Amino acid sequence: MDIKPGPLLQQINAPADLKTLSREQLRQVCDELRQYIIDVVSVYGGHFGASLGVVELTVALHYVLNTPYDQLVWDVGHQAYGHKILTGRRDVFYTNRKYKGISGFPRRAESVFDSFGTGHSSTSISAALGMAMAAKYKGEDRRSVAVIGDGAMTAGIAFEGMNHAGVADADMLIILNDNCMSIDQNVGALKEYLTDITTSGTYNKLKDDLWKALGKLPVGKRFTREIASKLEHSIKGFVSKSSNLFESLNLRYFGPIDGHNVNKLVDVLQDLKKIPGPKLLHILTVKGKGYSLAEKDQTKWHAPGLFDKITGEIYKKKFDLPQPPKYQDVFGYTIIELAEKNDKILAVTPAMPSGSSLKFMMDQMPERAFDVGICEQHAVTLSAGMATQGMKVFCNIYSSFMQRAYDQVVHDVAVQDLPVIFCLDRAGLVGEDGATHHGAYDIAYMRCIPNMIVSAPMNESELRNLLYTAQLESTVHPFVIRYPRGQGVMPEWRTEMKAIQPGKGRKLKDGDEIAILSLGHPGNFAAAAIRELRTEEINPAHYDMRFASPLDEDLLHEVFRKFNRIITVEDGVISGGFGSAVLEFMNLHQYHARVKILGIPNRVVEQGSLKELYQECGYDTNAIALAVREMIRSGVPDPVANKEIS
Amino acid sequence: MDIKPGPLLQQINAPADLKTLSREQLRQVCDELRQYIIDVVSVYGGHFGASLGVVELTVALHYVLNTPYDQLVWDVGHQAYGHKILTGRRDVFYTNRKYKGISGFPRRAESVFDSFGTGHSSTSISAALGMAMAAKYKGEDRRSVAVIGDGAMTAGIAFEGMNHAGVADADMLIILNDNCMSIDQNVGALKEYLTDITTSGTYNKLKDDLWKALGKLPVGKRFTREIASKLEHSIKGFVSKSSNLFESLNLRYFGPIDGHNVNKLVDVLQDLKKIPGPKLLHILTVKGKGYSLAEKDQTKWHAPGLFDKITGEIYKKKFDLPQPPKYQDVFGYTIIELAEKNDKILAVTPAMPSGSSLKFMMDQMPERAFDVGICEQHAVTLSAGMATQGMKVFCNIYSSFMQRAYDQVVHDVAVQDLPVIFCLDRAGLVGEDGATHHGAYDIAYMRCIPNMIVSAPMNESELRNLLYTAQLESTVHPFVIRYPRGQGVMPEWRTEMKAIQPGKGRKLKDGDEIAILSLGHPGNFAAAAIRELRTEEINPAHYDMRFASPLDEDLLHEVFRKFNRIITVEDGVISGGFGSAVLEFMNLHQYHARVKILGIPNRVVEQGSLKELYQECGYDTNAIALAVREMIRSGVPDPVANKEIS
Repeated sequence: MDIKPGPLLQQINAPADLKTLSREQLRQVCDELRQYIIDVVSVYGGHFGASLGVVELTVALHYVLNTPYDQLVWDVGHQAYGHKILTGRRDVFYTNRKYKGISGFPRRAESVFDSFGTGHSSTSISAALGMAMAAKYKGEDRRSVAVIGDGAMTAGIAFEGMNHAGVADADMLIILNDNCMSIDQNVGALKEYLTDITTSGTYNKLKDDLWKALGKLPVGKRFTREIASKLEHSIKGFVSKSSNLFESLNLRYFGPIDGHNVNKLVDVLQDLKKIPGPKLLHILTVKGKGYSLAEKDQTKWHAPGLFDKITGEIYKKKFDLPQPPKYQDVFGYTIIELAEKNDKILAVTPAMPSGSSLKFMMDQMPERAFDVGICEQHAVTLSAGMATQGMKVFCNIYSSFMQRAYDQVVHDVAVQDLPVIFCLDRAGLVGEDGATHHGAYDIAYMRCIPNMIVSAPMNESELRNLLYTAQLESTVHPFVIRYPRGQGVMPEWRTEMKAIQPGKGRKLKDGDEIAILSLGHPGNFAAAAIRELRTEEINPAHYDMRFASPLDEDLLHEVFRKFNRIITVEDGVISGGFGSAVLEFMNLHQYHARVKILGIPNRVVEQGSLKELYQECGYDTNAIALAVREMIRSGVPDPVANKEIS
Repeated sequence: MDIKPGPLLQQINAPADLKTLSREQLRQVCDELRQYIIDVVSVYGGHFGASLGVVELTVALHYVLNTPYDQLVWDVGHQAYGHKILTGRRDVFYTNRKYKGISGFPRRAESVFDSFGTGHSSTSISAALGMAMAAKYKGEDRRSVAVIGDGAMTAGIAFEGMNHAGVADADMLIILNDNCMSIDQNVGALKEYLTDITTSGTYNKLKDDLWKALGKLPVGKRFTREIASKLEHSIKGFVSKSSNLFESLNLRYFGPIDGHNVNKLVDVLQDLKKIPGPKLLHILTVKGKGYSLAEKDQTKWHAPGLFDKITGEIYKKKFDLPQPPKYQDVFGYTIIELAEKNDKILAVTPAMPSGSSLKFMMDQMPERAFDVGICEQHAVTLSAGMATQGMKVFCNIYSSFMQRAYDQVVHDVAVQDLPVIFCLDRAGLVGEDGATHHGAYDIAYMRCIPNMIVSAPMNESELRNLLYTAQLESTVHPFVIRYPRGQGVMPEWRTEMKAIQPGKGRKLKDGDEIAILSLGHPGNFAAAAIRELRTEEINPAHYDMRFASPLDEDLLHEVFRKFNRIITVEDGVISGGFGSAVLEFMNLHQYHARVKILGIPNRVVEQGSLKELYQECGYDTNAIALAVREMIRSGVPDPVANKEIS
């Protein structure tokens, strides 16, 4: 890599090196760190705005804290690039999010400085509190700090963590990094509240008084909890208990202060080290700070892809031929088509309007499509409430985030058999976001729930048909439609929509000796493998099963009566997934076939391109073709046994 | 049933009948309703304290609201007995929680007055908001009311709901029923905050001013939103925006008022009907109100079982022989034994200290065992944070509530491979609590997660051995121990503890022709079935597999080499569960045996006694014996095929 860090940054191989610098040099370190992030991300890709926004905070924290002895938890870790660069990973930073490279999020296995893995949002307060309580129990003076954005603060677990922290009597600091954004514009009452206190004169007055009081702190070993308590009491004169949301929860509130003034941050963090108990520091930052285009359009620059750092041009691949659309866009455009005809349709997404492309509908039909903020649990139960009123609600949540609303899916939707439609975007392997974001488990955790229809489209047309089917009055059960990140396969995707009977698959191709049963998008890999095998005079049959639950029993009887060699392919975990459901069917009906299940293995899969990961997990085109060849070569069970015994 | 309702209650077959009564008669209705609940519950059993606490609120709500057109959502529905009695279920109330009887919670399929099923806590705000938003979209003047306790308010989803309600511009009322309790004493900063505002002079002053202002409301059709808005503005003079946690979230806050004054409640609810937008009414009640023993010991009387309503004696079954303990008590006592020897052990439960028996340790080692309130997500991530500091954390959560922390289990524990110990109490069918509380899915949703050890003890001694094993330094992965509600089988349960190698099962008994593989407590049903079959000269082998993940592959090879008839038994859902894992093994190693999977079917199972439900689901002793007989009688596959093909 030929990107050079600045002269100070070059010397920082660990926070200890940072601590040797003078206060006056910290601004330059910030400038160099910011520039290095811009230089590397523009060429190698990655998240962008979040880490630029916390450059000063990152430098100040590592300057003041004794990491890794002190525990620093970065909520939604894509703000932690600066942290990674300062903690020994500067020279491998260009491998960020690449296959076998460093993770785009903090990862405990990667560095002792990564106290807690944080791919999903809003976990930092709970994790840091657990660390602080353990330190207290062990009698260690270890500090715990959680850095959390105002977007992440809207999730319930953050509130749960604060509610406990307020009474836990453990020494922890929550830094609320307030930039009014999650990936999209932050929403909710809390956001309005934060804006209020940020702009209020009282608070600014308060702030000044407060820092003056802090300036009088006695420093050193003689500073005891007793003195702190007295100090606290005097501060309480300014910040009265009932005057603040956070103070209501018994967290001492400090701020808001400018999060881009590194020396101010150092001062404040040093002062706060002396104040015991649970406390919250509110800092104001700008997402994308220091790169003006990113400051102006923060959503676009959240993770822009590669770009020219001088002109700001975001590189787009150019193609001679029309390309297939992203699955998310097929969803985004199709739901509008459907909603125009069916006025019972409403739509909900928890903070993924851009990522899900629901924003098309939010722009066009603002009274019918809602971004509710980072709160998957609420999104699901809200959808259930709407469904009780006869609405057809499309609730769009990434597969791995749906894990956060599992109980709501079971308890509020499935047990009551409400026909909510769950669109699980980013289902299956997701690529560069890696281990925390793979939508690996949803087939397994959804198909075990009663009443639940679990489907996966093989292509754009199928997605449209499933979306159409799900909103019909005749569809009376909860309905999962899972589809992957990225592109489909049909440049001409605006096909006429047709109803599909829930639980009905389709035979794509007759064949001999062996049948491939695919679920969802990997059906295209199977089709490619079949084309490849043609030259070897191997001719597998191909069934696109469409549904993991209920299974198409008619089609499966056809398959098992005809074939004793079967391969199943899915973009999900093998344990308990679609292939496992096929085994349950086979066993129940006493068929005996050799079945090879291809899918995500039962281990943590790290990041990489989709191509690399499909290959690693063994269900890309080559792997399917190989499995077919091996199965054809190997022995098969007695075909006589392959009759149903009744 | 020979329990007679009072003279007024006798006439109330629907809320319309209640509305014909005069305001003066409402107190008598309350008294009769309270007495009827005491009379029926003392003889027929059920939850007790919660419904007594909301008698006046229940009467007032149905008097003022136009149910079922207006939507009334009772959070954690065991407070809804009075609601059920007033809405047409008085004469079947004695079947409450019984097999084929009415549910102990609101249930949509049971009554149009049950707007939303609420077995798990804290869902009501989201559900009611969904209803309110749908009403707004449809242009209906339907009202939505959520009644939620202060305990339920600590869960993240409640905060998520409020955060959205504050900006949603929909007409909804949240009634905060503040009794300072969940099942156990409520905990957390919010509780302290509520106590503060309840006792503060400012608030009581405020309250009076506010109701005076409300008294001046113009009533009738001419009352428009504009007037309401003016009124709101004047009220804001008293309740300033920044002065209140709920106002911070843009919810208009009213109260606190006495929740046992029915006429005051009627006045207030009528006034609030005229105030548009999202609002919160804070009422103060006493759990168990009107039954003095229950008022004094609220935890004991949450669900006391049968009792003498005059003397307050709670009936206990008397036995001549020593009885086996509850599994929860084995956990509760054993963790203390372990913690006395291993100072790395900490323990966490989200609001289930009594139910899990963790309270024994909380009493004895308060610095090492924590009740964190109703917040499963936080409990899991907090435990993960503690585990990063080398602690051995036992996180005890009922199986069905663990659904609420699924993402935290995946993302914060399993992906990072932190050795947190999850004790899933109430796993499998739970009996009278019914559909929402069965711990049916955990085997399926846990075994698909990488790194996760999933175990189930067959008896008390095995539970002790698993608890012992889980806290050893050699156990380096997350470890699930699931065990059922209720009694074990060993009166002499304090056995010496031994380590079990994770993933190792045990052969309990050799046999011929057929093998039974059981997981967990139903192994005892299998053993009983085997004893029964002895007289018929049928002699099954019996394996207690102990682990659903990882499977004991050595033992399974032994089984599949020897047997071609196999029955699996588990206290969990068949789709994707333990039996399914056995099929995956069989398929992978190309064995061919007839396998019959016994467990919970893939449909919603309602309430009943455990005995009734095991029978209904077909895995009690009789069902296992029957399955053995049928399998022995029926044809079997060619034993030649039953060799592994390599």
